[in-house]
Amino acid sequence: MIIVNTGNGKGKTTAAIGQVVRALGHNLRVCIIQLFKGDSFYGEQNILRNLDGLDFFSFAKEHPNFNHNLGLGVILKQCLEALDKIREIIKENKGYDLVVLEEFNIALRDKFIDIDIFLKLVKELSSHKSKIIITGRGAPQELIDIADLVTEMKEIKHPYNSGVQAQKGIEY
Amino acid sequence: MIIVNTGNGKGKTTAAIGQVVRALGHNLRVCIIQLFKGDSFYGEQNILRNLDGLDFFSFAKEHPNFNHNLGLGVILKQCLEALDKIREIIKENKGYDLVVLEEFNIALRDKFIDIDIFLKLVKELSSHKSKIIITGRGAPQELIDIADLVTEMKEIKHPYNSGVQAQKGIEY
Repeated sequence: MIIVNTGNGKGKTTAAIGQVVRALGHNLRVCIIQLFKGDSFYGEQNILRNLDGLDFFSFAKEHPNFNHNLGLGVILKQCLEALDKIREIIKENKGYDLVVLEEFNIALRDKFIDIDIFLKLVKELSSHKSKIIITGRGAPQELIDIADLVTEMKEIKHPYNSGVQAQKGIEY
Repeated sequence: MIIVNTGNGKGKTTAAIGQVVRALGHNLRVCIIQLFKGDSFYGEQNILRNLDGLDFFSFAKEHPNFNHNLGLGVILKQCLEALDKIREIIKENKGYDLVVLEEFNIALRDKFIDIDIFLKLVKELSSHKSKIIITGRGAPQELIDIADLVTEMKEIKHPYNSGVQAQKGIEY
């Protein structure tokens, strides 16, 4: 089953984390492969790293939009490493019940990852009976086409619009 | 800050659970008050009950839509107990950083809880510096009006439409 959380609203990552917690609570095996999140995942990681049954990998911790000094070559290399991690999971038949591909939609949108290569890997992983959750705004239509469950997190109202700052434990 | 997760799509509860995990990872204090979820919260609870800093209360474990033998009087009484729990938190000044009011939108929509009483309690709780997340489809406009952050989880594609059954660790 291929699941996509996309849209401009909140809750794409937190919903995936909620799914991870639910799956681990059923003693399922889970893998998170994460892009573009460094310290902003600190809160979740503090809890998740102590839970059994979860493997966690983080690549390309910053997105060039937030660090203009990052070379494109570096990002592309790190995204390729993330794809290699998916290949490794498939090849070694790791038997994860749930694989979360965090912010991969962003990498697809920004052409850091080739959509055809990615779709092929996702289909292959899915054929190994893994449920796959792919998060990030801007999910490409080709991914939505092959997905089973797609949710758009849509911003109806946001406090930034009225000048409220990001808050620890809520926004990051 | 008053946060609302609503809409007909997936992720309203799991996003709240993800927020709970994030907050606990920052050593914040969290309270979940839950309606209409009995065994379907089994997975999450297995993990959450072992985490420090979280208080969890569950009322009205079934919704009449799923159990037609439930008397309306029973539901109304249990929803009033849930409101009393919110009053207790306010009165005893429990100092929660985050309070999750799970599926309260449903109780409001179905008139099990009076909207005016609820809005008054939520505003009061919010004035105690608690962040409040209220989940469930059908959030009433009056609640959206007083909320700071509102996200609609919108179903774009759902496997039930193509005949797939609910799956353990994903749907419940």
